[in-house]
Amino acid sequence: MSDTPDSAVRMYIDTHRAAFLEDLAAWLRIPSVSAQPEHDGDVRASAEWLSAKLKETGFPVAEVWETPGAPAVFAEWPSDDPDAPTVLVYGHHDVQPAALEDGWHTDPFDPVIRDGRMYGRGAADDKGQVFFHTLGVRAHLAATGRSTPAVHLKLLIEGEEESGSPNFRALAEQHAARLAADAVIVSDTGMWDETTPTVCTGMRGLAECELQLYGPGQDIHSGSFGGAVPNPATAVARLVAALHDADGRVTVPGFYDGVAELTDTERALFAELPFDETTWLRTARSGAASGEAGYSTLERIWARPTAEVNGIGGGYQGAGSKTIIPSSALVKLSFRLVAGQHPDHIEQCVRTWAEAQIPPGIRHRITFSPATRPCLTPLDHPALQAVTRAMGRAFGKKILFTREGGSGPAADLQDVLGAPVLFLGISVPSDGWHAPDEKVELDLLLKGVETAAHLWGELAAALR
Amino acid sequence: MSDTPDSAVRMYIDTHRAAFLEDLAAWLRIPSVSAQPEHDGDVRASAEWLSAKLKETGFPVAEVWETPGAPAVFAEWPSDDPDAPTVLVYGHHDVQPAALEDGWHTDPFDPVIRDGRMYGRGAADDKGQVFFHTLGVRAHLAATGRSTPAVHLKLLIEGEEESGSPNFRALAEQHAARLAADAVIVSDTGMWDETTPTVCTGMRGLAECELQLYGPGQDIHSGSFGGAVPNPATAVARLVAALHDADGRVTVPGFYDGVAELTDTERALFAELPFDETTWLRTARSGAASGEAGYSTLERIWARPTAEVNGIGGGYQGAGSKTIIPSSALVKLSFRLVAGQHPDHIEQCVRTWAEAQIPPGIRHRITFSPATRPCLTPLDHPALQAVTRAMGRAFGKKILFTREGGSGPAADLQDVLGAPVLFLGISVPSDGWHAPDEKVELDLLLKGVETAAHLWGELAAALR
Ligand SMILES: [Zn+2]
Ligand SMILES: [Zn+2]
Repeated sequence: MSDTPDSAVRMYIDTHRAAFLEDLAAWLRIPSVSAQPEHDGDVRASAEWLSAKLKETGFPVAEVWETPGAPAVFAEWPSDDPDAPTVLVYGHHDVQPAALEDGWHTDPFDPVIRDGRMYGRGAADDKGQVFFHTLGVRAHLAATGRSTPAVHLKLLIEGEEESGSPNFRALAEQHAARLAADAVIVSDTGMWDETTPTVCTGMRGLAECELQLYGPGQDIHSGSFGGAVPNPATAVARLVAALHDADGRVTVPGFYDGVAELTDTERALFAELPFDETTWLRTARSGAASGEAGYSTLERIWARPTAEVNGIGGGYQGAGSKTIIPSSALVKLSFRLVAGQHPDHIEQCVRTWAEAQIPPGIRHRITFSPATRPCLTPLDHPALQAVTRAMGRAFGKKILFTREGGSGPAADLQDVLGAPVLFLGISVPSDGWHAPDEKVELDLLLKGVETAAHLWGELAAALR
Repeated sequence: MSDTPDSAVRMYIDTHRAAFLEDLAAWLRIPSVSAQPEHDGDVRASAEWLSAKLKETGFPVAEVWETPGAPAVFAEWPSDDPDAPTVLVYGHHDVQPAALEDGWHTDPFDPVIRDGRMYGRGAADDKGQVFFHTLGVRAHLAATGRSTPAVHLKLLIEGEEESGSPNFRALAEQHAARLAADAVIVSDTGMWDETTPTVCTGMRGLAECELQLYGPGQDIHSGSFGGAVPNPATAVARLVAALHDADGRVTVPGFYDGVAELTDTERALFAELPFDETTWLRTARSGAASGEAGYSTLERIWARPTAEVNGIGGGYQGAGSKTIIPSSALVKLSFRLVAGQHPDHIEQCVRTWAEAQIPPGIRHRITFSPATRPCLTPLDHPALQAVTRAMGRAFGKKILFTREGGSGPAADLQDVLGAPVLFLGISVPSDGWHAPDEKVELDLLLKGVETAAHLWGELAAALR
């Protein structure tokens, strides 16, 4: 069992709930929009506010870390148990842009509580989910009678996640020694829905490239030359068409090398989720589901690697017509990667494959962007089981498992620190990330506090 | 033989050559650029100049015809032989834009003669080739002693060809009765090269469409949804890839219905032309020739129907990357048509084919632009033989046959008037149509005059 009496945690949270929510609201009032230069000062104010709040919470160390962009916050609270494992919490204090005229019912930067929800930009993504760790660690101490956490606790809360984390990997590398941890807890995701608490076990990786094809030295007349020279727009289309076979599998040789296939247990666990394809299609605003044969929609988006066209272009795209053979065309491809795939290998495979597709008379150039590796924690990993137990105690329910189809800076921490990445999030799809009327469900937020309160004891036991 | 003593024609041309070139230079000084509104007055001045010059030449009727855009010029010179056939000459008096800073060695609108060439915008396309008919008809009369041409001669010289002839078909329909003719002579093309006089026997037709594909209701995240919903950029690529088979043949069912296959004679005549693929590829600025299997390059561009991508687009095409599944994609296709194909049938075939290509979850819309029909005069047509004989007398050489891969307003005259279209042009590829330093070879220009002088007698005999 656990070293934290669950009722003591609940009592502590009840007592401090009002002050906690007031503090969160104060933080949400700082419009820390990293994408808008006019809010640079607000992003800095947000970092300073958080740093001060973490000191007030009891973290002996709380610092603002500079980057070439927006500042991050680092905090550390060593355990008095020298053998305790070290855990690093990741989140971000910057938010998406928001304006009343986008369709908000109240000022996005003047949070209000309505019907058990707090509305405001950042309420769920990600200030609310960072902030539950402050009351969480206090409840952990109060309920256990400890003066320091059961783990060496570290927090790294970045300030540029909503701008693509351009400086995050360099920051992690620069401070790798101080960030060293036995496990990383990412609190920047969510759970299945209001009544289905889940733990996310991984994210897909990402490799991206732009492929440019060059045909005639300039646009040439399709009357004079049409039908007798290779057309780069046709070539790019054939290349895209050749990317998948009739079963929706990626045809690039070597693409599936090393892919961790879903186990029967994993598939069974996915199937336990109350997935409704009609609802999902409504969210996707798509008229049909389609993809790799032999896999369900959830398997396709969480556990299978993909190749997707993000953009394609060439020749005349304006109104009316223009009878040309275009001189060039391009396609932007992204490959979602799963455990077992390495971006460098994928890049090599795609380059070799693309080269073989290019017809005579067409030249090409491929440019790859920096990649993100996939991360996946096995279901039997002790740290994952600790997170699941902590959540189970807070929610009093069986915890199911999800994954994320996207990719995130968490993978950089996995790479740089060599530590497994776990996810603890209580946000739900209805929270409206990046949308008007973003909110957090207060009941779930406090379950997040409660989970966090249980987590350090569970992890200390699991990782010892 | 002919009713025009060839030496008399030559003597007449020699005598009037200087004045003829001075007149042409005066016309070239009028910058009749139809695409630039600031030159609207110049286009009108050009029409008025030409109309006055045609009256001076002897045409009893010479009128400026208004259109919703730039004015055209119509002139008529009836034969005193009531049984003479009627022939309509087509050309245009507007020119492409030109500016010294584009790379001209002399002012494009202040023509100069250098090394036996007249340099100036419109020298070849198309004022020079319209103008040779003025001295041509005078030489015809002088050499034959006639007071009226051997045919009922009509001219229609439009003012918007370089702007896509937007009002030409309506103009032809409006004046169909006055334009009625037994044959149309288009003087707006060229011949193979300086030493290879040729007669063009036809132009390909053109059907154009834009196909738009719609997927998700908005751009959606490729991490959250990638691999599980249909992507319209992928769909458009597959559609384009499916447009041709491995032999480069268009796969659209019905596309080749009625296509006039090349006869052995036609292929043999094409093969007589001094075609050099390396030189041709340099002109195309293409690294390779490719196309429908079983046909030479000339056959592909002149005598085979094609499907070509003029533009393709969808999703993110800017710098860097954007991890989206785009909500829509488009492709602009053009189909070059040959004799025997009808644009309406092609449109129906393409619509049916495209519909069958669209995967579930993707909606589509196809829009066709107004089409141009192909025109081709059979090698044994008496009018074509008359043009060839007239040219042979002027050049003193065997005349070979070419075609045009492009499409032109001439096809509208064929449709509206129901008359065969013949081509008489003396311009050569080095003349630089639409480019800096456009010029006309004076020797060839005067051969054009000479051909025109022989043509009316030849046609009168052939069409009687
Ligand atoms: Zn976030
Ligand atoms: Zn022209």
